[in-house]
Amino acid sequence: MEKVKPRTLTGFMELLPAEQIEFEKILSVLRSSYEKYGFYPIDTPVLESAEVLFAKAGGETEKQVYRFKKGDTDLAMRFDLTVPLAKYVALNYNELNFPFKRYQIGKVYRGERAQKGRYREFYQADIDIIGDEELSILHDAEIPAIIADILNNLGIHNFKIRMNNRKLLGGFFEINQLADKVEDILRVIDKLEKIGTQKVVAELGELGVDEATAQIILDFVGIEGTTAEKLTAAEQFAGKSELFDKGLEELKTLVESVAAMGMSEENYMLDFSIARGLDYYTGTVYETTITDHPEFGSVCSGGRYDNLAEFYTDRKLPGVGISIGVTRLFTVLKETGFFNFDNTSPIQALIVPMTDNINYCIKAMSALRSSGVKVQTYYEDKKFKKKMNYANKINVPYVIIIGDDEIAKDMVALKNFETGEQKVCTVEEAAKIILA
Amino acid sequence: MEKVKPRTLTGFMELLPAEQIEFEKILSVLRSSYEKYGFYPIDTPVLESAEVLFAKAGGETEKQVYRFKKGDTDLAMRFDLTVPLAKYVALNYNELNFPFKRYQIGKVYRGERAQKGRYREFYQADIDIIGDEELSILHDAEIPAIIADILNNLGIHNFKIRMNNRKLLGGFFEINQLADKVEDILRVIDKLEKIGTQKVVAELGELGVDEATAQIILDFVGIEGTTAEKLTAAEQFAGKSELFDKGLEELKTLVESVAAMGMSEENYMLDFSIARGLDYYTGTVYETTITDHPEFGSVCSGGRYDNLAEFYTDRKLPGVGISIGVTRLFTVLKETGFFNFDNTSPIQALIVPMTDNINYCIKAMSALRSSGVKVQTYYEDKKFKKKMNYANKINVPYVIIIGDDEIAKDMVALKNFETGEQKVCTVEEAAKIILA
Repeated sequence: MEKVKPRTLTGFMELLPAEQIEFEKILSVLRSSYEKYGFYPIDTPVLESAEVLFAKAGGETEKQVYRFKKGDTDLAMRFDLTVPLAKYVALNYNELNFPFKRYQIGKVYRGERAQKGRYREFYQADIDIIGDEELSILHDAEIPAIIADILNNLGIHNFKIRMNNRKLLGGFFEINQLADKVEDILRVIDKLEKIGTQKVVAELGELGVDEATAQIILDFVGIEGTTAEKLTAAEQFAGKSELFDKGLEELKTLVESVAAMGMSEENYMLDFSIARGLDYYTGTVYETTITDHPEFGSVCSGGRYDNLAEFYTDRKLPGVGISIGVTRLFTVLKETGFFNFDNTSPIQALIVPMTDNINYCIKAMSALRSSGVKVQTYYEDKKFKKKMNYANKINVPYVIIIGDDEIAKDMVALKNFETGEQKVCTVEEAAKIILA
Repeated sequence: MEKVKPRTLTGFMELLPAEQIEFEKILSVLRSSYEKYGFYPIDTPVLESAEVLFAKAGGETEKQVYRFKKGDTDLAMRFDLTVPLAKYVALNYNELNFPFKRYQIGKVYRGERAQKGRYREFYQADIDIIGDEELSILHDAEIPAIIADILNNLGIHNFKIRMNNRKLLGGFFEINQLADKVEDILRVIDKLEKIGTQKVVAELGELGVDEATAQIILDFVGIEGTTAEKLTAAEQFAGKSELFDKGLEELKTLVESVAAMGMSEENYMLDFSIARGLDYYTGTVYETTITDHPEFGSVCSGGRYDNLAEFYTDRKLPGVGISIGVTRLFTVLKETGFFNFDNTSPIQALIVPMTDNINYCIKAMSALRSSGVKVQTYYEDKKFKKKMNYANKINVPYVIIIGDDEIAKDMVALKNFETGEQKVCTVEEAAKIILA
């Protein structure tokens, strides 16, 4: 028979089994953190009507999307989880209770030119809190708490959640007579860390911002000190712009509530240079960097917006949310040697039968499973060495050898595969040791 | 702004939040059962090269597939999880340890004409055990044990796993001089329950099977009695066909091992009429019916095959596996009122602040979360009645009311929302009661 060469498309992550176990652990941490904070799971289709999906999008995004026709239907694969959320909330408005808190973890698709670290299919894990007409600023403080919960549960403790407020920045530009250029300036400021002050001044110049004003902006976004010191420094600009004052007030409430959440000051800071390029955001914005790996960039970003679903409904639906690029996070963590794939076994114990009485082995296995032990039996008729080789390759912590001697005593031989220690005991004892 | 009407494509399931919680519970049961039995998770892309995906497919399947070009690349969305598994095993052969046990839960796509109960996007949950060149028949006994574990954990106790062996059937047709028509006859027998004996005789007639022989076949596939009685009845045909004898031997081993697994006879039976239409299967075959709802048909089917990946590799990779159509299972269970969506809350407790001291509420919430309680605070500035109405709508079991009186005593008021009982206690006590 002629064979087709098996291959996986470029830009599509497909992990080996031991790697997948670690990836699933991340998904599991995300699910349990999101649920602890009261978010409903939702699951929207990967395919949507192109008309619905492109209600808002345009330009660069649209070019990247996998869009095609099936019969007369114009279809597209989702490129994020935000547009499907907007559709979902607009569609099910009457069935939902607001504030509506949802999480969604799923694959999204972008047919970009493939490059290192860029995927065409990747997991996003989004949470959003949506209000009906209004949404208390206090919700904004939940977001850093959730980020911290997730990262701590993943075993990442050195991280910094950087927070800012778009109203504060916009207001500051207003004060400096730049009200008509706010969006453009924000996009330049967003690049500060990447391109440096010199280029930012140059790009601001192209926008018609003179050098002196550019310096005022750079001084403001570069304000240093403790959280309290930064707020005091910002205070000196108060009273000149309603927008600025509102932003400052929101930031103060945010900081106070985050402290009440019990978060360590080590893990969050105000950073007036955080802008988030997207027009979408209108209040609090977040970025999260892993301290030991600033080169990862932000692993978790988001913010507050005024209007989730304006392309589908007249209702004003403000919200606050974040997105974690799980596939990218996994990839960068893997590159730093964060995971130990050698400690990854699908089971806790492997039963190795050295007897013809296979039913005894099956019964022992069933009893272990009932006790909650992840276990399987090596059923193949191979030499002992080959069986042990399999146990070694899948990195199983315990091997249970069952021969006629053990059966005669109604026992099993439990071998700790790391220490080599072996002990003849009952199945119940074995379960206890394995689960200890 | 002109609005786009929000809608979800026909044939694409999108659940309301409370329904989604129940759906996620099913996924969670599947994952934990599969893992208990030693299966590795794997995750393959939704999109594959059309050449790779269609290495085997053809005819009806190919017509249903979502296939399209992006630039010069001919792409297709996966229509099952078996072809991606074959690709995965052929591609990663050198990195895998055999027997290789994997589970995959994911969405698959079939652009069929939409009809009741048929989805264009739906979840499959597959497990397969793959051998290298050979695979012990003992693995076949794990399959019914896993099915039973899953259904019991879902709260479905009245079910029957019906098992047969394609070699036994094929051998029986050989004995009756029908060796050249085995596949065709199997496809007719597969329809027995649906179309009845009369139509089966007619269809067999079209295949050139005379009425007397058709009756012999019907008598055989209709053999009744206990498992032991059925095996004894089959025994009388032994010695006439190697294939039949091999099938009978495999069935005996299967039945013996299934009994050793401790499975209740209530939950499995031999049924010589189970054929599974697909050419693919070569040994054990399984179907699972829910006793109270035979109209669901089989909710979990599968079997043994000789060659997983013959379109990609010369290596012989025999396996045994099953597939659960999760979306369909959810839909039929929902229709029978199996789920109580009114008992579905995203949280265990809602904090209702009746004070301006919101930080006290946040601190109480953080303490509860640290204790493992799923909790959120109702932050919106609304009347008490409105807050309670929200609690009622999301069906939360406990409400924690915090007013200045409680704060003065460093306490909270815990209200059981079902019984109406209310108690002033510390946050620690509240956590204990909620988690009890």
